[in-house]
Amino acid sequence: MNNDTLLRALLRQPTDYTPVWLMRQAGRYLPEYRATRERAGSFLALAKSPALAAEVTLQPLERFALDAAILFSDILTVPDAMGLGLYFADGEGPRFERPLRDEAAIRALAAPDPAGSLRYVLDAVRETRRALGGRVPLIGFSGSPFTLACYMVEGAGSDDWRALKTMLYARPELLHRILDVNARAVTEYLNAQIEAGAQAVMLFDTWGGQLSYAGYEEFSLAYSRRVLSALIRERDGRRVPSILFTKGGGAWLEAMAASGCDAVGLDWTTDAAGARRSIGQRVALQGNLDPSALFAPPERVRAEARRVLDAFGSAPGHVFNLGHGISQHTPVESVAALVDEVRTYSRSMRSTVEKKA
Amino acid sequence: MNNDTLLRALLRQPTDYTPVWLMRQAGRYLPEYRATRERAGSFLALAKSPALAAEVTLQPLERFALDAAILFSDILTVPDAMGLGLYFADGEGPRFERPLRDEAAIRALAAPDPAGSLRYVLDAVRETRRALGGRVPLIGFSGSPFTLACYMVEGAGSDDWRALKTMLYARPELLHRILDVNARAVTEYLNAQIEAGAQAVMLFDTWGGQLSYAGYEEFSLAYSRRVLSALIRERDGRRVPSILFTKGGGAWLEAMAASGCDAVGLDWTTDAAGARRSIGQRVALQGNLDPSALFAPPERVRAEARRVLDAFGSAPGHVFNLGHGISQHTPVESVAALVDEVRTYSRSMRSTVEKKA
Repeated sequence: MNNDTLLRALLRQPTDYTPVWLMRQAGRYLPEYRATRERAGSFLALAKSPALAAEVTLQPLERFALDAAILFSDILTVPDAMGLGLYFADGEGPRFERPLRDEAAIRALAAPDPAGSLRYVLDAVRETRRALGGRVPLIGFSGSPFTLACYMVEGAGSDDWRALKTMLYARPELLHRILDVNARAVTEYLNAQIEAGAQAVMLFDTWGGQLSYAGYEEFSLAYSRRVLSALIRERDGRRVPSILFTKGGGAWLEAMAASGCDAVGLDWTTDAAGARRSIGQRVALQGNLDPSALFAPPERVRAEARRVLDAFGSAPGHVFNLGHGISQHTPVESVAALVDEVRTYSRSMRSTVEKKA
Repeated sequence: MNNDTLLRALLRQPTDYTPVWLMRQAGRYLPEYRATRERAGSFLALAKSPALAAEVTLQPLERFALDAAILFSDILTVPDAMGLGLYFADGEGPRFERPLRDEAAIRALAAPDPAGSLRYVLDAVRETRRALGGRVPLIGFSGSPFTLACYMVEGAGSDDWRALKTMLYARPELLHRILDVNARAVTEYLNAQIEAGAQAVMLFDTWGGQLSYAGYEEFSLAYSRRVLSALIRERDGRRVPSILFTKGGGAWLEAMAASGCDAVGLDWTTDAAGARRSIGQRVALQGNLDPSALFAPPERVRAEARRVLDAFGSAPGHVFNLGHGISQHTPVESVAALVDEVRTYSRSMRSTVEKKA
């Protein structure tokens, strides 16, 4: 591999600079992405075409000196493969045709064979690896068991997740049954991605932060832990690092760090310096610029990037990222300034440390 | 006053049981509220009628043994009085006709005289105090300077607060100017409520939790602190306690506790036992049941209430509340079970402690 900075940083090994990638980096803020999506006809058609998925995955790498590619896919592929019928209503988020509302449907739920109905994802992994030609590592991903369950029960995104929360408090055993199936499905799905060529994997727990303090351990972290502990650890003689990200997960960082992952993702509300102090070098940390900081002019973007780098410090084990997915309204020149500043400034931080030593 | 349990708990004095009230307790989950609102014609007409506001404020007290009443009003009365034109589109949240988007409008912004355009709120305080006849204390409130600014700049609620965040990162001096005016306006508004008869006051920082870790101090807490330090401390020979609540504020609890408030409100994601340990007896704590727990059957509601009480412990200085406003979809019998369980169980916790001592 030409550039394995990301993999080394995720394993807390020294690197010349802080690697950077952006959640949703292949996305609507790029005109070339919008063009490919237009050609595909819809987001789902794009995600289900291995060739087009590989094409958009590489687009941000042509513009910016990013240190990783991330598989282009949707976080809800697994419940779609379970038969819930994923679709996107115009201008809205994801929806399921058949959300899980009755006990019979929940009892009938089964983990899909990734080689069957999720084959298009594995083909996209292989196609993207070929297209990358070893430039940077490819990150595979899945929604966490809990975050998948949120959409599976609710049928769509929600402000209050009323159907999901009603099940959680009134019939917790049903939710546990869903989470149990999801944990097995996500484990097999991520392992299949690793076997197809993913060099690191990330669990997105987008909605775990909506749980009560005790509920997060019981309904989200317990199942993410189960996935993390069953992942393939090594492939082609190299460790495959895993990242666990919970939006709004600041209260649970130490528990997340002990979950079996190699790195914890921090959202933009989290105190990066405090996280580094409390977690030490037990795991790497990823994050955590406010995605909205990219709405500022380039010089301000650079200043905010330096602030984030300073907060994490120059010890090994930081991967620069946003604290959430990049907004479709982000100016492309903000991303250029950000990626350039992370590279330049983090390199200078290290040489300052060396000079002092 | 017949029942001053709330005021004593807010000042960390011993009480026979843990007082309870619920954010948005006078609200749409009550059929009698919906009837009064129907009569008023609209939410704003209801909020702007002192007689009807007093009427709905007392409705939940007729049903449940609550230990406080909270002024019926909107959090955006202050910017409305500044001339921004508050209105509610059908089935949507609050909106402003004239959001603050240009520098001239921001320079022209001034704190309103509460005795003028906010007089209807002060009349509602007086009317409600009269109607209460000393049964329980009346809590006054305002949106925090930052939360008001969110709506003033954005013009409506938002998922990403793009206009607000763009101003914050690109033109922070303009946002500081708005926050400076808001801090003065909110201080005068809350002091006028205290002079009109509010016996405790609460600052709702609904959106502070959307800020970056550093941004919360700079754009939200600094201005809440300014308000809290300038509040009338005593009225009619009694201390007027203040409560600061930030939704998603778990990362900043110690800073909030040092802001000059008497109590910190916790949302449902916050570790209550951990908050008690880190904050000790410096301030009282209010919260923090997940509002969605009220979607469960009464026996589950009671179990969740006990879990929250146990987490806070039996030391003085806990006010039971939800971690956010009560949902309009809440069954009335859930609230009855909750309020009864808090009273009964917290009383038994204290007698157990006494027996042990």
